[in-house]
Amino acid sequence: MDREMSEICCDSEQKSRAKSRTLNKKRYNPVTKEIISELVQIVGEKNVITDEEKMEPYSYDETPKDQYAHMPEVVVTPHTAEEIAKIVKLANRELIPITPRGAGSGLSGGAIPIFGGIVISVEKMNRILEIDYKNMMVVVEPGVVTNDINEILAEKGLFYAGYPMSVETCFIGGNIAENAGGGKAVKYGVTGRYVMGLELVTPLGDIVQLGGKRVKDVTGYDIKQLIIGSEGTLGIVTKAILKLIPLPTAKVDLLVLFKDVKTAIDMVSLIMTEGKIIPTSVEFMDKLSVQASCEYLNEHLPYQQAGAMLLIEVDGNREDQVEEDAETIGELCLKNGAIEVYVADNYTTQERVWSVRRNIAEAFIVISPHQSLEDIVVPTASIPDLMPELERISKKYNIQIPCYGHAGDGNLHATLVKNPESTLEEWYEVEDKALRELYEVTKKLGGTLSGEHGVGSKRKEFLEMIFSPAEIELMKRIKRAFDPNNIMNPGKIFDID
Amino acid sequence: MDREMSEICCDSEQKSRAKSRTLNKKRYNPVTKEIISELVQIVGEKNVITDEEKMEPYSYDETPKDQYAHMPEVVVTPHTAEEIAKIVKLANRELIPITPRGAGSGLSGGAIPIFGGIVISVEKMNRILEIDYKNMMVVVEPGVVTNDINEILAEKGLFYAGYPMSVETCFIGGNIAENAGGGKAVKYGVTGRYVMGLELVTPLGDIVQLGGKRVKDVTGYDIKQLIIGSEGTLGIVTKAILKLIPLPTAKVDLLVLFKDVKTAIDMVSLIMTEGKIIPTSVEFMDKLSVQASCEYLNEHLPYQQAGAMLLIEVDGNREDQVEEDAETIGELCLKNGAIEVYVADNYTTQERVWSVRRNIAEAFIVISPHQSLEDIVVPTASIPDLMPELERISKKYNIQIPCYGHAGDGNLHATLVKNPESTLEEWYEVEDKALRELYEVTKKLGGTLSGEHGVGSKRKEFLEMIFSPAEIELMKRIKRAFDPNNIMNPGKIFDID
Repeated sequence: MDREMSEICCDSEQKSRAKSRTLNKKRYNPVTKEIISELVQIVGEKNVITDEEKMEPYSYDETPKDQYAHMPEVVVTPHTAEEIAKIVKLANRELIPITPRGAGSGLSGGAIPIFGGIVISVEKMNRILEIDYKNMMVVVEPGVVTNDINEILAEKGLFYAGYPMSVETCFIGGNIAENAGGGKAVKYGVTGRYVMGLELVTPLGDIVQLGGKRVKDVTGYDIKQLIIGSEGTLGIVTKAILKLIPLPTAKVDLLVLFKDVKTAIDMVSLIMTEGKIIPTSVEFMDKLSVQASCEYLNEHLPYQQAGAMLLIEVDGNREDQVEEDAETIGELCLKNGAIEVYVADNYTTQERVWSVRRNIAEAFIVISPHQSLEDIVVPTASIPDLMPELERISKKYNIQIPCYGHAGDGNLHATLVKNPESTLEEWYEVEDKALRELYEVTKKLGGTLSGEHGVGSKRKEFLEMIFSPAEIELMKRIKRAFDPNNIMNPGKIFDID
Repeated sequence: MDREMSEICCDSEQKSRAKSRTLNKKRYNPVTKEIISELVQIVGEKNVITDEEKMEPYSYDETPKDQYAHMPEVVVTPHTAEEIAKIVKLANRELIPITPRGAGSGLSGGAIPIFGGIVISVEKMNRILEIDYKNMMVVVEPGVVTNDINEILAEKGLFYAGYPMSVETCFIGGNIAENAGGGKAVKYGVTGRYVMGLELVTPLGDIVQLGGKRVKDVTGYDIKQLIIGSEGTLGIVTKAILKLIPLPTAKVDLLVLFKDVKTAIDMVSLIMTEGKIIPTSVEFMDKLSVQASCEYLNEHLPYQQAGAMLLIEVDGNREDQVEEDAETIGELCLKNGAIEVYVADNYTTQERVWSVRRNIAEAFIVISPHQSLEDIVVPTASIPDLMPELERISKKYNIQIPCYGHAGDGNLHATLVKNPESTLEEWYEVEDKALRELYEVTKKLGGTLSGEHGVGSKRKEFLEMIFSPAEIELMKRIKRAFDPNNIMNPGKIFDID
C-alpha cells in the first residue's frame, strides 16, 4: 500500500500543481527572491522556511493528502501581530496569496495553500498571556494548544468549555477559524460562545480589536462573531479573550443500547423535555461504527444486539446531583425502549466507552485509507429519516457509510469509505456522486454541509447545493469588503471571480 | 410642565426637521404620491398610513421624544417577506430611506426615521408559526411580543431564555435587531445565543435564509450572527427560529446588602469560582437607585445601612438543589462582607424585590423627565473602579447619576439625570460633556458604549471614542457591501458619507 500511496501523491500533486500554476499566472504573482528577503527582514531568518522538505508538513491537513495537499512557496512563523500586519501589506502590494495555519488538524483543507504563496503559521505565537480569575477569562495567542489552556486552568478550578474533540493537538486559533465544536456542545455550546474578544490582522493589514473582556456588547456590528468560523478568509487572529466557567467536578457516562436509530434519537428531546436535564453530551454510534471501533480496539461492547448506541454524559459540581441526573436519564431510556443501560462512573470505564467513540475514524482508516469524513448537520429530530437514506446511498455505490457523531446537536460524521476492491479512479467518481446525493438528502431534511469542520477547499464545490445565488453573493460581497485583493486564504469556502 | 414639554417638542422637531430636509435633499428623494400609490399596490390601502396623527406614534421610541423624535413620510404595515422585498426594491430604485420598526420600545433611537422616508412596521407579522417540540425550537414572525412566546411555551414545559427586561411590550424582531439581553443573561446569555435561523430581506430586496433548525452550523459565513444586533441597518428580519430549553420550575431570589460597591461586586466571581454556581441573575443597585425606587413604590427595603445591593437569582428544575444553591450563595456572601441576606422564595416576595429593581428608571423619570439612560459595559471586576468616577462626574456637573443593572455581566445603566434646577439648554450641554467623560472612563476600564441597548442615533457621535478609524471603516465596508445605496435604516450606528 505504501508504494501505491506514494505514487498517488506524486501524480495528484503534479496535477494539482499544474492547475495552480495556471491559476497563479492568472491571479497571483510568484514569491520571488526579493520577497523572501523582505520576509526575512520582517520576521528574521529563523522564521522563514523555503526548504522543500521542511515546507512539506505545511502542505496538508487531516484531509486525504493525495487529494488535497498543495505546497506553499514560503512558510513564515511570525511572533507578533505587527509582523503579520507587515506581511499582509506586502502580500497586498505584490498580489501574493496568504494561507493562515494553526496546527494543521483541520478536516476541510482550510489551512492548505492551494495557490502556493505564503503560509503564515502561528505556531510560535503560543503564549497564554493572562489568566484573569476575577473576570473568569483567559487571554491567549492563537498558537496555544487548546488542551494546554484547560490544563493550566484546572489548577484554578476554571474551565474553557468550547473545545473540540481534537483538543490535544489543535490550536485555539484554528478552533476560532472553524468555530470548532466538541462532544460537550449540547450543554456548553461551541467555540463561538466563549470568544469575548479578538485581535485580528485584517486582509488589508490593519490590526483591529473586536470585543474585549465584556460578556455583553452591542456597540457596532458584531464583527468578532463573523470572524469566528470564517476559516481564515477574513483575517488572521493574533489574540483571543476566552470566557471561562467553573470546572465541573463530577461526571457520569451512560452507554445506552437501542434496537434502532429512531428509538435512540427520540431520546434526545425526551431527556431535555421530560427529564428536564440538559446533558453535557449525547453521542451517537450506529452498529457499523461500534463494530469497527470495537474490532480495532479489541474491545467487547455488547453491540451485536443493538441497532444504535447513545453515549450520554452528565456533569456538574455536585456528585449526588450528577448521579441523580444519570439515574433519571437511565430510567427514561429504559422506559422508552432502550435495551440496556451501562453506567460508567469512574475514570477507567469512562475512558473505555469514550475510547470506542473516539477511535471510529481510525478504525475505518485501517479498513480503507480512502474515505470522505463528512460533517453534515440536520435538525436533531430528522436523524432517523437520514439513516435509511445513508443505507440506500451505501448500497447504490457499493461503499460503507458508518455514521456516528454528536446526536444531541444533529451533527453526524457520516463517512464514505472506499470499497477496498474498487480502483482509485472508481472511488473518486463514486465519492463525488455519493457526496452529492448525501448533501441533497441532508438539505431536504433541513440540514447543511458542515456543523464543525468547515467548507474549506473540500466542500466549496457543493456550496451552491445549499445556498441560493443571493445568499452566496452576499457572502462574496462580505469577502470583498474585507479583502478587495482576495489575498487572504483564497479558494476556501468559495472562489472569487 | 406639560406646556413646557410640548413647546420643547415643537422646537426640537422643527430643528431636526430642518436638518433632515437638507440631508434629504442631498441624499434621498421625497415620498411622492406616485410612490404612495405603488406602496398601496404592494400592501393594500389598509396597510399604508399617511395621516400625520396616525403616523406620530411611529416617530419616537423610548428615548426622550424632544431630543430624538422624527416624523416618517409614510408608514407601511406589510404581512409578508415578499411585500417587504418589493418595498425595499422600490426604495432602492427611488432612493428613499427605510426604517424598520418593532414595538418602538428601543432605547437608542434605532426605530426612528431620522431621514423621514418609509417606516416598515412589522406589527402585523405577529404569528407564532410553529412550536417544534422534538427539536425544541419555535418559529416566529418578527412582530410577536416576546412574552407571548413564553406564555404559549410554558404549557409545554419549554422556555425561550434570551428575552430582555421589556419582555411584556417588545417584539422579538426588535430583540434580534438589538441583540437584546435581560436579567437572566448571566446563566442563559442573550438573544443571539438562541437564534438558530433567520429569514431576512436584504437591503437590496433579496429574501435570504440564514441558518435553520440546526444548533451547529459552520457552512459559509455566519451572516445570521452579524445580522443579530445590527440594528436594522443590514436588512429586515421576517422570520426567526429560536432554540428553547426546558422551563425551569424552581427559583429563589436573594437580596443581599453590602456596605460598599467593591464588596458587592467581588461576589460576582466568588459565586462562580468558590461557589461553583452560575446564578441566573446578579443585578446591582446602588444606594441612590434603591432609595429612589423605594420612595416611588412606597416600599421599605432596609437600604439605609447599605452602600450597594445585589439581587441574586438561582433557578433550576429541582427545588432542593435550587434551595441548596441559594444557601451556598447566601453563606458565601455573609462570609465575604455582606451585611444581610434576605431570601425571597415565593412569588410575592420575589415580585417585591424585583419590582424595586424594575422601577428604578420610572422613579427617576418622576424626579426629572430629562435624563440619559446609559448602558455601558465594563469587565465585571472593574465595576468598583467605575463607581468613584461616576461620583466625580456627578459632582462636577451637578447632576445625579444613579447606577444599577446587570452586575453579573458588567452591564450598568448609569443614568444621567437632569438637575431640576437647571435649564434645558444647560442640561443638553451638560449631558453631552458628562456622557463624553463617562465613555472615556468606561473605555479606560476596558468597557464600551452599550451592552444591550445599541448605538442607534443616540450614541453614534461617540463611536469614534471607542473604535479606531480602521475598525469603523471595516464596519462601513460591511454596511456598503449589504446596502450600496444606504437606504436601510440610515443614520444609525454611524453615518455613511
